[in-house]
Amino acid sequence: MDLASVIGLVAGVTFIMIAIFTGGNFLLFIDFNSMLIVGGGTIGATLINYPLGEVLGVIKVVQKAFLHKEETPTGIIKTLVSFAETARREGILSLEQQAASLDDEFLKTGITLAVDGTEPEHIRDIMTTEINYIAERHKVGSGIFEAMGMYAPAFGMIGTLIGLIGMLAQMNDPSSIGSNMAVALITTLYGAFMANLIFLPIAGKLKARSSGEILIKELCIEGIMSIQSGDNPRIVEDKLKAFIAPSMRNIKEKEEESG
Amino acid sequence: MDLASVIGLVAGVTFIMIAIFTGGNFLLFIDFNSMLIVGGGTIGATLINYPLGEVLGVIKVVQKAFLHKEETPTGIIKTLVSFAETARREGILSLEQQAASLDDEFLKTGITLAVDGTEPEHIRDIMTTEINYIAERHKVGSGIFEAMGMYAPAFGMIGTLIGLIGMLAQMNDPSSIGSNMAVALITTLYGAFMANLIFLPIAGKLKARSSGEILIKELCIEGIMSIQSGDNPRIVEDKLKAFIAPSMRNIKEKEEESG
Amino acid sequence: MDLASVIGLVAGVTFIMIAIFTGGNFLLFIDFNSMLIVGGGTIGATLINYPLGEVLGVIKVVQKAFLHKEETPTGIIKTLVSFAETARREGILSLEQQAASLDDEFLKTGITLAVDGTEPEHIRDIMTTEINYIAERHKVGSGIFEAMGMYAPAFGMIGTLIGLIGMLAQMNDPSSIGSNMAVALITTLYGAFMANLIFLPIAGKLKARSSGEILIKELCIEGIMSIQSGDNPRIVEDKLKAFIAPSMRNIKEKEEESG
Amino acid sequence: MDLASVIGLVAGVTFIMIAIFTGGNFLLFIDFNSMLIVGGGTIGATLINYPLGEVLGVIKVVQKAFLHKEETPTGIIKTLVSFAETARREGILSLEQQAASLDDEFLKTGITLAVDGTEPEHIRDIMTTEINYIAERHKVGSGIFEAMGMYAPAFGMIGTLIGLIGMLAQMNDPSSIGSNMAVALITTLYGAFMANLIFLPIAGKLKARSSGEILIKELCIEGIMSIQSGDNPRIVEDKLKAFIAPSMRNIKEKEEESG
Amino acid sequence: MDLASVIGLVAGVTFIMIAIFTGGNFLLFIDFNSMLIVGGGTIGATLINYPLGEVLGVIKVVQKAFLHKEETPTGIIKTLVSFAETARREGILSLEQQAASLDDEFLKTGITLAVDGTEPEHIRDIMTTEINYIAERHKVGSGIFEAMGMYAPAFGMIGTLIGLIGMLAQMNDPSSIGSNMAVALITTLYGAFMANLIFLPIAGKLKARSSGEILIKELCIEGIMSIQSGDNPRIVEDKLKAFIAPSMRNIKEKEEESG
Repeated sequence: MDLASVIGLVAGVTFIMIAIFTGGNFLLFIDFNSMLIVGGGTIGATLINYPLGEVLGVIKVVQKAFLHKEETPTGIIKTLVSFAETARREGILSLEQQAASLDDEFLKTGITLAVDGTEPEHIRDIMTTEINYIAERHKVGSGIFEAMGMYAPAFGMIGTLIGLIGMLAQMNDPSSIGSNMAVALITTLYGAFMANLIFLPIAGKLKARSSGEILIKELCIEGIMSIQSGDNPRIVEDKLKAFIAPSMRNIKEKEEESG
Repeated sequence: MDLASVIGLVAGVTFIMIAIFTGGNFLLFIDFNSMLIVGGGTIGATLINYPLGEVLGVIKVVQKAFLHKEETPTGIIKTLVSFAETARREGILSLEQQAASLDDEFLKTGITLAVDGTEPEHIRDIMTTEINYIAERHKVGSGIFEAMGMYAPAFGMIGTLIGLIGMLAQMNDPSSIGSNMAVALITTLYGAFMANLIFLPIAGKLKARSSGEILIKELCIEGIMSIQSGDNPRIVEDKLKAFIAPSMRNIKEKEEESG
Repeated sequence: MDLASVIGLVAGVTFIMIAIFTGGNFLLFIDFNSMLIVGGGTIGATLINYPLGEVLGVIKVVQKAFLHKEETPTGIIKTLVSFAETARREGILSLEQQAASLDDEFLKTGITLAVDGTEPEHIRDIMTTEINYIAERHKVGSGIFEAMGMYAPAFGMIGTLIGLIGMLAQMNDPSSIGSNMAVALITTLYGAFMANLIFLPIAGKLKARSSGEILIKELCIEGIMSIQSGDNPRIVEDKLKAFIAPSMRNIKEKEEESG
Repeated sequence: MDLASVIGLVAGVTFIMIAIFTGGNFLLFIDFNSMLIVGGGTIGATLINYPLGEVLGVIKVVQKAFLHKEETPTGIIKTLVSFAETARREGILSLEQQAASLDDEFLKTGITLAVDGTEPEHIRDIMTTEINYIAERHKVGSGIFEAMGMYAPAFGMIGTLIGLIGMLAQMNDPSSIGSNMAVALITTLYGAFMANLIFLPIAGKLKARSSGEILIKELCIEGIMSIQSGDNPRIVEDKLKAFIAPSMRNIKEKEEESG
Repeated sequence: MDLASVIGLVAGVTFIMIAIFTGGNFLLFIDFNSMLIVGGGTIGATLINYPLGEVLGVIKVVQKAFLHKEETPTGIIKTLVSFAETARREGILSLEQQAASLDDEFLKTGITLAVDGTEPEHIRDIMTTEINYIAERHKVGSGIFEAMGMYAPAFGMIGTLIGLIGMLAQMNDPSSIGSNMAVALITTLYGAFMANLIFLPIAGKLKARSSGEILIKELCIEGIMSIQSGDNPRIVEDKLKAFIAPSMRNIKEKEEESG
């Protein structure tokens, strides 16, 4: 479970709750119609904007991003260095068994190609193609949330305009202006809240996860190239460490806890 | 018919209707002049912005995007793998007949070039050129809707300013301020509604369709290259699957339903 | 004369006029000072922003874009195919005379280079350099109008602020507030109107024209390369048609009317 | 002195002055505190945003852009063609003296490298590296003004908020609301004025100057390459003219006056 | 300590304080709840947006950017030229000792690779990979502050909406409207202030620092390449000076003071 997100969501909601409770009556801020306009409008626009399959697929993407533990660059470097050691000691063919037990489909494919003696340039081509299309699919995921982060405030404004027009047109009782405007403004509040505490931060997290995942896949390619060319495990390690921050390079003992 | 779009449009309109009916009188929100200003201004600006041919062409593009069923990557992979099998069994020349019966002009051209023994590098050049210009034309289509999504709220604001100025200048009867402002705000509402539930989502859908279509064309190039070089059908399939998501790779039985 | 632009401008202005006349007094919307602020400020900022020569040059660019008839891709393909036929029949030197009578300086230069026996790679280099710098100059033209489309609403707001401050500071007579605010808002209206019905659409049209012109120049390069290498006219035609939409490829009889 | 900028600034300020004088009392629009907030805040944010050296350096950049006369492409082409003639007639070594008297450090370095017999590919590398880093430094200059154009309206809004809050909290005398709000709005006016008549146009002019300067440097590289390879002066001229607009190519007599 | 930032922050805060004190009561502008909403919301959204490790890491990045003295390009050029002299006089192996005493890990690695006789193309590859990933990590740092600069005004607006809704719904006492609105507006002020005097300028400074650091690393690569190929120290110096501004090239005596 992604701890930072939980903390962030709880913190954001809590501070806003405090503001609301200090300011007055909590029930003022609950309005079912307003939710329908902002939520329904946003979902409606998103469904027109994106193919159904991609909108539904996004649920799985979000679950994965927030629930599954990400592989760490240091973990993958350790794996690749141990593969390099095995390959050096017992030949590259000995990696076949180890590859079979890998969870990571991408790394498994790469190792298998190397074991099969595929030409290096060819392995790099196939794996780079795959990375490009993975990045493309990731971009769709964060794009959907960015679109929702754009539509939500827009439908918030649409709701407020509807409320204002209704109010202004039937302005018989001046004493009710205040409460009617309060209701009209709630959709704007919902739109801003959804966009800035839910949709846009999720879009940002998906992007961060995507670049983390792609860094790891680029590490895999570089590692496999290096192993296949028979590099010394020490050199494999040096090459791979160029991808990560100096502070993370002392990976003998510690395992990164990435939030 | 694109199901997600229908659901999206119906959902969006319904929720906004609910908001309107709860808030008051539906007729308040129907104003013919306001439609003229926002609609006319948006269409006018778009006609200045884009050549007439492209604006008219966009109607066909939208019809195609929302009514025609998109080819699926998995479908095209199946076709290409079956071609690879035929080419392996009976020689590449045997593809001539199969190519003739294809609907997809792009794939047909590619297969014909391969059958004619055109050099691979040359085939890739021609087909990549074509993809680039297809992408360029697609961009014009979504660009027109993005422009409309920008102009509609602007003319909504222009309409509101006209209404406000007219009202403020002749402010004899304070009791009519409310209803006059209500009318003035309707153009802003129309502009926001058109932009966020029609123009921008359509622009988004055209982009999504375009990248889907281009992915399929890139699959075609890769497949034809692989078939022409005499690859084993199994290898053709492996190469092509690198373009699609792992979850879609088990394509033996299921046909994707893309919304 | 660019028909779509005329229709667009007439439509946009008409619909806004309707709105104004329905809403009240036309004279309310004519204010000379407001025109000075928005127009003068926009022109002033643009003159600081761009070199004088480029600002003056833009008038010619706009004239060309709206008055001159654009060459069509299909027209240029016909010309190039007929050149290919001549070159095949009578040798490439026979193109010298035909090139001399061309209006298009770019194509003329290219043909002359080919007739002179310049190396293909060299011709492509020279012509691509020229295209790049043409695109660069086109970008300046549309950039000037985009800048004006950004400055006009800004000076509209500045005018409104000046009006508001003047009004608020001397608020002796509450009954005059309305009419003073009406005047203050007129600059905002002018800014929005100029930006959205004039500057931004013209910037868009210049961009569309630029990509059309550059497509034609790329067709020229490809055609000259193909003619010089002695390709069959039929193949020249096939190569060039990859640049244009399938619906435009049946060019035997019809000449495109591009708006 | 850059004439267009002077005209632009005078025009912009004049038209706004007219607006102010027509609207009322000029002194209303002079407020020292408001200047402090907008000016001080903008400068403060800019100093945090950019290293001190770069902020100070920008003064020199602006002086250079507005006071120094720009070299023209046609002037540099004439120089290069005359060098090509000398090199043809008397050998490339004869350029050594002529190079020594050049003001343009960039061209001088290039000619010297060519005279020294440095390999063409190497000269191009060194000079392209220098262009890239020049472009990088230019971008810092226009970036600083773009940042100021973003910060000024923001601090204008901050000033208005401070004024509004102060006014609203102590709203004892309703008759003073108007004049207090007028004062509060002045910072917004200042921010918009500074951004749109000073900072953003200067940022734009620096960009235009930068691309002009870089075009000239690219001309230099191309010319030196051509001279070193012993091209006919006529060919050198043809090659270099591909960089400039057809209307500027007839450079025998006229010298461009670029604003 | 980064002097410009201190001056900038002090200046910005001072001028705003002056505005506040002139306008009225300082205590009006201190509101604990408002701080909670804007600060808490911004931090919450940022924690959802970015992995925890990166958010925590940013503190170190900021400390480094504002407290540590940056290396100067001229300093690194001097070091590299002195290395070139040593290498020329005593052979490249003699650099081993000097490299060992370097603080800059990046330069040390490069020199060691050169001393070890690694192939130039290979050294360039490794070091360029490292630069690319350093740039990537720097972008995360400035990206976090840009996100905060976007979220802060959004939560400022959310706070104001909450305040307005609470006020409007319970508008019994018209005399309290002013002070309630004043409180509601404070969150907007906080959001604008934090974004424009803290988050966005820090994001800008991190970007400026990053490009400075990367320029130095590119200088290192170029210098090591030149030293390894046995260039004359004079030529090494010339090559490296192409990276910096002409005004900084006279580096014999002066050491740049970069703010």
